Amino acid sequence: MNSKRKTGNLLTMTIREQVLPDVQTVALVGTGLLGTSIALALRQQGFAGQVIGVGRTQATLDKANQVARLDKISTDFTAAAEADFIILCTPVETIKQQLTALGELLPEQSDPGDRPIITDVGSTKASICAHAAQCLAGRGRFVGSHPMAGSDMAGPDHAASNLFIGKPGVVTPSEDADAQAVASVRELWGMLGMRVMEMSPQQHDERVARVSHLPHLIASLLVAQVERNDGLPLASTGFADTTRIASGLPGLWAEIFTDNREAVFRAIREHQAELETFRAMLEKGDHAEIEAYLAKAKKTRDHWKLGGSNDAIA
Amino acid sequence: MNSKRKTGNLLTMTIREQVLPDVQTVALVGTGLLGTSIALALRQQGFAGQVIGVGRTQATLDKANQVARLDKISTDFTAAAEADFIILCTPVETIKQQLTALGELLPEQSDPGDRPIITDVGSTKASICAHAAQCLAGRGRFVGSHPMAGSDMAGPDHAASNLFIGKPGVVTPSEDADAQAVASVRELWGMLGMRVMEMSPQQHDERVARVSHLPHLIASLLVAQVERNDGLPLASTGFADTTRIASGLPGLWAEIFTDNREAVFRAIREHQAELETFRAMLEKGDHAEIEAYLAKAKKTRDHWKLGGSNDAIA
Repeated sequence: MNSKRKTGNLLTMTIREQVLPDVQTVALVGTGLLGTSIALALRQQGFAGQVIGVGRTQATLDKANQVARLDKISTDFTAAAEADFIILCTPVETIKQQLTALGELLPEQSDPGDRPIITDVGSTKASICAHAAQCLAGRGRFVGSHPMAGSDMAGPDHAASNLFIGKPGVVTPSEDADAQAVASVRELWGMLGMRVMEMSPQQHDERVARVSHLPHLIASLLVAQVERNDGLPLASTGFADTTRIASGLPGLWAEIFTDNREAVFRAIREHQAELETFRAMLEKGDHAEIEAYLAKAKKTRDHWKLGGSNDAIA
Repeated sequence: MNSKRKTGNLLTMTIREQVLPDVQTVALVGTGLLGTSIALALRQQGFAGQVIGVGRTQATLDKANQVARLDKISTDFTAAAEADFIILCTPVETIKQQLTALGELLPEQSDPGDRPIITDVGSTKASICAHAAQCLAGRGRFVGSHPMAGSDMAGPDHAASNLFIGKPGVVTPSEDADAQAVASVRELWGMLGMRVMEMSPQQHDERVARVSHLPHLIASLLVAQVERNDGLPLASTGFADTTRIASGLPGLWAEIFTDNREAVFRAIREHQAELETFRAMLEKGDHAEIEAYLAKAKKTRDHWKLGGSNDAIA
């Protein structure tokens, strides 16, 4: 990417060499929990370029601006197209619409280095990456991302620069992705403290169907089942933990389930088979076998450690 | 209960009138997380009688004594039989064995007021209450309890006097239970800050199968499924919450599932039906319907509030 802007003093230059040195302007499209947290972390890590916020709602932009002191906020989506690093921090279907809009706004550039780097935070990747390839050919360098730092709490009010620390930051470049763009997107999440990993969009979708989408689904099902059985008065800490994510945003999650439904179906079938395995074990009544099954799960869970604090975002 | 001991000054008498005034000696059988937390809370609430700890392992008793300063500790189970209020704080099957042992140790008493009050903290109630009725007739006044203040952390080290605050304290008297014993057991859990509720042992077991046993089971299943799919590197906060209880004690939980298996089977069947309802909805692909389902679960979950902090025992 050509450096279009010269910044002033040596100190700033030095810092800029550490954090996305070739980037002039980061556009955060969507300034909810994730977008605002990225803005906060960029500043805290010494990013010296401009950080602009683009969104539909003035009130959310104002709140994000209060929290993260942005260089510019705008409800006009075309503002995003002026940046050389664009991060789409919106739900899955909105990301696709914004990719379409970017494809119309961005000019064709013969030198890939002149095309902006574009990534997103969507919870599914295959359909987004396929759509980006269609819309942005010759106009933008897209590399899909999924920073897995969710919360049941939404909005810029809950933003925190440490939201990402130790959490998985999945980057899903297509086979013909621009190498510099992949490096920059990896650098972004690494700078925010994430454990960066790379895989294909399809691999990502299969794996998150088990580790994220199925648990979310089950949390909602458990709440529905317990409510129907008048069980809530007896619910305690275990239930609180298990069902916390059922408080996630319904519209956002309906999009995720719909978009990734084939992988979610496979995850549901596996879960049903696992349930049947346990049921048969209990039917047989072999206490030692049941205990061994639970002990194996406990061992796995105890050894698994999430970076940062598991409970920081509870 | 006849007052067998006179305590000294007026202040002590005044305090004792507030907290289990007729009780001379509480025996905590099992001084793990729950037993030691009860001891701490009894002292903090001004209980002026003796609090003794009875257990199998000297090291655990010593640790409990350090944490809660007990009046006496003993590895000899017969010490429990000297108390007039006995709380069995052990796993389900051990509780049944201890009820058998108490039936052999306690003398028959023609005046019910002379029989000790006995309760327990077991996670299932029907089989324990039936067994107690058999063993203790004419010898002890049993009233089953289930203080629902679990944790994935065990042992006296994690004891806290506020463990019980705001949590459900279920009391399950049999139909012919001694009224004074029921009142004292309710007073115990109320004094510890629990939301005390009363129901039959069978009602309890059906409801906890949905609200406690099924979530625990599912947490363990999810861990097993995700591990098999190499999904752990992508696991984040949602997975951490949903599966936290999978770190519970395998032996204790194997006993719970085995003991309550008929109700657990019913809870599993309901869960399978709920899963199928959602799968069919997703198959149909009606986004609005899926969103409405998730929104209803979110509303229920958001409105449900656990007393104390949901996360205090995370």
